[in-house]
Order: sequence, then structure tokens, then C-alpha cells
Amino acid sequence: MSILFWLDYIGTMVFAMSGVLTAAEKRFDLFGVMFIGVVTAIGGGTTRDLLLGITPVTWLSTPIYLYLILAGVLVAMLFRNVLASLRRTLFLFDTIGIGVFTIIGLEKALNLGVHPGVAVLMGVTSAVVGGVIRDTLTNEVPLIFQREIYATACIAGALVYLLLRHLGLDPALNQLFTAGVIIATRLLSIHFNWSMPILSMPEKKE
Amino acid sequence: MSILFWLDYIGTMVFAMSGVLTAAEKRFDLFGVMFIGVVTAIGGGTTRDLLLGITPVTWLSTPIYLYLILAGVLVAMLFRNVLASLRRTLFLFDTIGIGVFTIIGLEKALNLGVHPGVAVLMGVTSAVVGGVIRDTLTNEVPLIFQREIYATACIAGALVYLLLRHLGLDPALNQLFTAGVIIATRLLSIHFNWSMPILSMPEKKE
Amino acid sequence: MSILFWLDYIGTMVFAMSGVLTAAEKRFDLFGVMFIGVVTAIGGGTTRDLLLGITPVTWLSTPIYLYLILAGVLVAMLFRNVLASLRRTLFLFDTIGIGVFTIIGLEKALNLGVHPGVAVLMGVTSAVVGGVIRDTLTNEVPLIFQREIYATACIAGALVYLLLRHLGLDPALNQLFTAGVIIATRLLSIHFNWSMPILSMPEKKE
Repeated sequence: MSILFWLDYIGTMVFAMSGVLTAAEKRFDLFGVMFIGVVTAIGGGTTRDLLLGITPVTWLSTPIYLYLILAGVLVAMLFRNVLASLRRTLFLFDTIGIGVFTIIGLEKALNLGVHPGVAVLMGVTSAVVGGVIRDTLTNEVPLIFQREIYATACIAGALVYLLLRHLGLDPALNQLFTAGVIIATRLLSIHFNWSMPILSMPEKKE
Repeated sequence: MSILFWLDYIGTMVFAMSGVLTAAEKRFDLFGVMFIGVVTAIGGGTTRDLLLGITPVTWLSTPIYLYLILAGVLVAMLFRNVLASLRRTLFLFDTIGIGVFTIIGLEKALNLGVHPGVAVLMGVTSAVVGGVIRDTLTNEVPLIFQREIYATACIAGALVYLLLRHLGLDPALNQLFTAGVIIATRLLSIHFNWSMPILSMPEKKE
Repeated sequence: MSILFWLDYIGTMVFAMSGVLTAAEKRFDLFGVMFIGVVTAIGGGTTRDLLLGITPVTWLSTPIYLYLILAGVLVAMLFRNVLASLRRTLFLFDTIGIGVFTIIGLEKALNLGVHPGVAVLMGVTSAVVGGVIRDTLTNEVPLIFQREIYATACIAGALVYLLLRHLGLDPALNQLFTAGVIIATRLLSIHFNWSMPILSMPEKKE
């Protein structure tokens, strides 16, 4: 379990950093930048906890997350220009983040005894909702709705997890393997430029 | 009670379909289309449940909703061009949906013993918040803030429900009658082109 | 405690009024104007209560808030043109509102035994999230991310509260003093035209 914890921490920090960079590019002020950093990092897990009825939500009762987020925010603000040129590295950490968040969310939901389909949804929620809130608050159409294989990788990994769990695989192994599936799917999709199809449809006439 | 259940199911499916069509018109990718379909269908009830402290929220513990939503999403994706030409029919189902959702939300709140005014608000929330989230995520000003008699019909029906309840009408009858009031108000308002007034005010100078 | 209650009531009404004016300037219809008024007034406290697990959320179990909000909405709709010319007075009440909301949110969180850093965040959330939701629903980039000393004043006051509490100051005195600190910081920042810095960064190339 411990390696998953570490990856969770890294993912949380990187999500905070992605929020900071997005807000800074939009010329938000210092507070706005911090605010977007925080909600990007906590948005997914918070939504999951609220829906499942886990309150106070995790980061309220586990201050380590707040310290990690503050650290991520500070690092991103101080080294924003370096980070902007390290997008490939950040991208890798973000990918690790969504892999780990999906599995953590999925397991939390399964432990509460919900329907497996709902649990998959909770896993994906943990991974993607922070980014959706970030984009909505910065007045953008959310990135994840625009063709990249992102949430789809999370869904795929969550389904593999359920299958292997059904087959009796050791949970700790399953966690690592399926987080790996998500990360690999995401990396391959970028490398080979895979994209989600768009449904053909006449655009709306106003 | 059973007919209300069936209408609730139909309403949920139609809400999912309306989300799919909106997102597809905006050229969201396949995942984005599904995501918007899901949040449109569950947004109102989820918000109501969270505010009232009913967790896990209803659709998490009642998988039938998830199946209905997935069915609605699939049907809408496959038959999107047919559906686009069936807007009148869809509109009718959407209207049934808001009528039923209002009454269900109102009753849930009353059963928890909240103030009647708050219960009316919970009824309206159930009916309209899914659409508000759909429009916000697709970067539009929410439709329901723009002149049509929509939420207003829900408020009217909820008030009639409270009145008839006070007068001792049988609950099952009251449900059907007041859902009908909402549906009729909405249909009449479209037919006669009624609209909500806009307050005269100088537009904001930037 | 009683003066804080009164100030809380005034703040709630003024927040509702600010929502009404914003929506009316955007030419929302009558329902839209009321809706934005309500969510502006309850958004911050609701978010705080949900995160802390206080459900049903405060205004659901304390109808006085609903009456205050409705009163604020009605007054703002009827006297919108007078109010538009009284912006200085409204601004003063808004400032009182954020001061009081911050301290109330902070204390609620501390009483639940959360980490002080988290409690500060809950105080700020109470004060600013209503405005963020208002701006998001009216399709604007939230005002508070754009340079003014607003949330920063709340953070400053919350930190002073924690310090004085640590030093053993009487709670009732501490409340009033630190709400005053927030209000004074905000007023001074407007008077002297202080602003939050924006991080220098190349704008995003699309």
C-alpha cells in the first residue's frame, strides 16, 4: 500500500501545480492562482467523498494533503517559468496522478459496498473532476471533453481492476498493475496521437 | 406511487439524452458527451440529496438509475440525428421529467421535516439544477435564466401541492395532479409564448 | 454573540442583493435573477457545511435565512435603480458580510476540531464561494481572482483570530476585533488602491 500513498501524494502536488500554471496563464491574481491550485488538487476527491457521504471530506481530516497542496502551489508559483518548459515531466506526473486517483477512488467506493458500475464512476470522478472545475472556473470548456484519451484511460483501468479482483488477484498487486494500465494507456495514446471520436452532428443553429 | 416511479425513470432517461444532444452539438468528444449526459440526469437529485444530507446520494445506492442513464446516453448517441428532428417529443418528456422531479424532491424534503418554503426550493432544485450544470459545463449561460416559463412552472406546482396537502388531499392523487399542473403550465406557456419578464436596468458598463 | 448574528443577517441579505444586481445587469429573467440572488447568499456557507459534513446545511434547518434572502431579493428587484446608485453603501455592507462570514466559518470549523489551517480555509470559503458561484453562473471569470484585496483580507483576519485565540483572548471580543480587521483591510485596500500582484508569465499560446 505504501507506494500507492507516495504516488497519491505526488499526484496531489502535481494537480495543484497544474492549477497554478493554468490560472497564471490566465493572469489571475496571486489569490486566484492559489485558489485554482487548491480546487484542482482537491476537487475530484472532494466530489467523490461528498457523493459517497464521507464527511468531513478526506483532506479536512488529513492535514498532510493541505501541506502537499500548499507546497505544490508555492513551487509552481516560484518556478513557473522553469515548469512551463518542463511540461513533459509535469505531464508524466499528472498521468501518474490520474492512475493512482482512479484506483483509490474505486477502492473507497467498493469498500462502502456500492454497485461496481458506480464504483468505476467514483474512480473516474476522483481523477477528472478537479480538472473540470479548474477549467470551468477559468471560463474554458473543460479540456477532457476535447478528444484526448484521458478519462477513457481511467475507465479502462477501473474495469481491468474489477476483472482482476473478480479473478482473485491480490489487492496490492491489482492496485499497482491497474494504475500502470491507466498510465500506459494515457502515454501510448499521446505517443500514437489516439483520440476520442466526435459524433458527427450538425452544429446547433442559434 | 408506481406511475410516478415510471415517470421518474422516463424523466431521468430524457434528461440524460438532452445532455448528450447538447454536448454533441458543442462537438465534445465521446467521453465528454457521456459525462454531460450523466451529470444532466443526476445533477438535480444529487444537489438536493447533498443539501438534505441524504448520502450516499440516491443514484449511488439505487443502480437502476445508472442503467437508465446509460441507456439514455446510448440511445441518444446512436439516434442523435433522428432525435434532433423529434425535438417536440423530447420536449414533452423533458416536461414530464421536471413535473415529476419537482414533486419527488418536494416530498423527500417534507418527509425530512424541513420548512415548507425550503421544501419547495428542494423540489425546484431537483428539477432544474441538472440543466444548469449542463449549460455551465458547456460554457453557456444557463437556458433557464432566459425568459422561458420553466422553473416558474415547478414553483407553481410545488405551491399547489402544499396547498392541497394542507387541505388533506390523498398524497398519491396530489402527486399526480400537481405534476400535471407543472406539465400543463409549461406546455401552455410554450403554446401561448408566455415569458418571464426581464427587469429593466441599464446594462453594466465595464 | 448577538451583534455577530445581526451582522450575519445583514451580510446574507446584501449578498442576495449583489446576486440580484449582477443577474439583472446580465438581463437574466425574473427567475434567473432570484436564483442567482439565492445561490450568491447561500453558496459560501453551503459549501462549508457540505465539506465539514454539517447536513442538512444550516439554511435548510434555519428558515430565518430563507426569509432574509427573499427579503434581500425583493428589495433589490424593486429598488435596483436606486441601489445601483448606492454602490458605496452596498459595498460597505458586502465588506461587513465577508468579515462576519469568515469568522463564523472559521469558528464552525474549529468547533469540529479540524486542523487550524483547514479552519482558515473554511472561513475564507464561507466568505467568497457565493460570489465565485455567482460569477461562474453568469459566465464571468470570478471577480475575486482579479487583483482586488478581498479573499486576502479574509485570510489575514482569520490568521489574526487564530493568534489572539492562542493568546487567550475572550472569544466574543476576538470575533468582533477580527471581523473588524477584515473590514478595515478591505476598506483601506480600496481607499489606497492596493492590489494583489499578478505573476509575470507569458500568456498561453493556443
